[in-house]
Amino acid sequence: MKTYLDCIPCFFSQALDTARIAGVDEKNQKKILDEIAGKLPDISFDFSPPRMGKNIYNIVRKYSGKDDPLEKIKEKSNNLALSIYSQLESKVFASNNPVLTAVELSIAGNIIDYGVSRQVDVKKEVENILNREVNSMNKGMFHYEEFERKLASSKNILILGDNTGEIVFDKLFIETVKAEYKEKKIIYAVREKPVINDATMKDAEACGLDKVCEVISSGSDAPGTVMSLCSEKFLEVYNNADMVISKGQGNLESLSQEKREIFFLLMAKCKVVASGIGCNVGDIVLVPGSLINI
Amino acid sequence: MKTYLDCIPCFFSQALDTARIAGVDEKNQKKILDEIAGKLPDISFDFSPPRMGKNIYNIVRKYSGKDDPLEKIKEKSNNLALSIYSQLESKVFASNNPVLTAVELSIAGNIIDYGVSRQVDVKKEVENILNREVNSMNKGMFHYEEFERKLASSKNILILGDNTGEIVFDKLFIETVKAEYKEKKIIYAVREKPVINDATMKDAEACGLDKVCEVISSGSDAPGTVMSLCSEKFLEVYNNADMVISKGQGNLESLSQEKREIFFLLMAKCKVVASGIGCNVGDIVLVPGSLINI
Repeated sequence: MKTYLDCIPCFFSQALDTARIAGVDEKNQKKILDEIAGKLPDISFDFSPPRMGKNIYNIVRKYSGKDDPLEKIKEKSNNLALSIYSQLESKVFASNNPVLTAVELSIAGNIIDYGVSRQVDVKKEVENILNREVNSMNKGMFHYEEFERKLASSKNILILGDNTGEIVFDKLFIETVKAEYKEKKIIYAVREKPVINDATMKDAEACGLDKVCEVISSGSDAPGTVMSLCSEKFLEVYNNADMVISKGQGNLESLSQEKREIFFLLMAKCKVVASGIGCNVGDIVLVPGSLINI
Repeated sequence: MKTYLDCIPCFFSQALDTARIAGVDEKNQKKILDEIAGKLPDISFDFSPPRMGKNIYNIVRKYSGKDDPLEKIKEKSNNLALSIYSQLESKVFASNNPVLTAVELSIAGNIIDYGVSRQVDVKKEVENILNREVNSMNKGMFHYEEFERKLASSKNILILGDNTGEIVFDKLFIETVKAEYKEKKIIYAVREKPVINDATMKDAEACGLDKVCEVISSGSDAPGTVMSLCSEKFLEVYNNADMVISKGQGNLESLSQEKREIFFLLMAKCKVVASGIGCNVGDIVLVPGSLINI
């Protein structure tokens, strides 16, 4: 998707939220907002929001004086998700359709996001996920049958990871798929460097993703999958994959206009994206890219 | 209150919303946002948000090419409120405590606001008001007894008006007070010139406020009551009033640090203000200034 004018207030509020979580003092928070304001007249609206997001995060990083300003909050997200892993696993084991349940949990895990939503209480949100009735999902935007058919017929599957915490839910999905279908090669992609609360190789290793599948880097530190910034190695994997599963809103924002078939799994976190999907803000959706108009 | 960093994203989204409602094209919407961004480094955070709001609206006005960009939407708000006036009146007549009911309706009328909330369906909101259970109001932040005592003992009462549409609800409040208490002199203040969807003399006259009390101008076109911008005439009325009733968030933002007693009646529309009052966003409150910490 291109960047919309509605994204501008959001750039400022995300930067402010991130700076606060990173412990940046008020004087420097203001400097961050001023620097973003200074870049505003030169934004290309043809670029997707994660491309601007990368620049914004670099500004926050600069004023925080830390390479990975949200390191602690990310570790906390991962640890909280890991602490309920056995409960998530039991939910999948008890299900009549383990892959469906694992998909639903994997999307629900997208709630753990400090990038868009604000001051989310991870523990509470995770409890909500565990208590969530599967039926409450927006069935109209939950194209599971199409997803399952593609999954069954694909050998090489690429999953585009999103946030810390959420990746633990993805690990369960990968394990479930591997138990259900033999002969699947799953590759999981993370960001090259820390950006907002997105997962990197370090997080994938800390959560044991590397024990259940191959983990690669996108080659970029944009908070999405901005093709022009990705590494050749990543692009080769992407182009050769039989199926691409994209997690979260940042990946959707950067890939919604891609020609190839991609299944987007996310919670819609803003009006612009929700309207492009045809759902409401807060809806948990599984939708092929061909149905997204943004 | 001073301006908070949290107000900055809100300045951009309010300007964008207002520009869209005013029919400004996308290219000029971007120019408006760029111009606000250009002013950002020079904002004095010691000023209240309505002081910046005035400047922002001037930018919107410039690019809209109209003196009163929201003229039509304001007329619509007034007419919609007038169209249900007899229903509101019946509600007050049927009440055991007509003044209390009129106060509650007058605060609920603050929902009709295109400045902060977005794309509000006035008709629907008004129906919600009519159906609203009085008990649903946040009683903890509804200091009616104190308000009523002051009302009973005051001769000169100044009401600081806020939005179009809402002023019709205020008219009913004024009529109810005049029917209940004899010998009250009520003065109603409106903005000097159009700003966002705030009521001016023209709106007060269109809604018949001038038939039930004296209507004066604040002398300023800030979307609040910024003392340093108000006329001498207004300040004289303000200083001589036995009781000041302030409607809406804009007036609160500009008056929260005033020494004199003021009763604030509003729906809290953002996190910063809600936290200063000690209520939740969306709560309908009646609170004396001494209890507001912002």
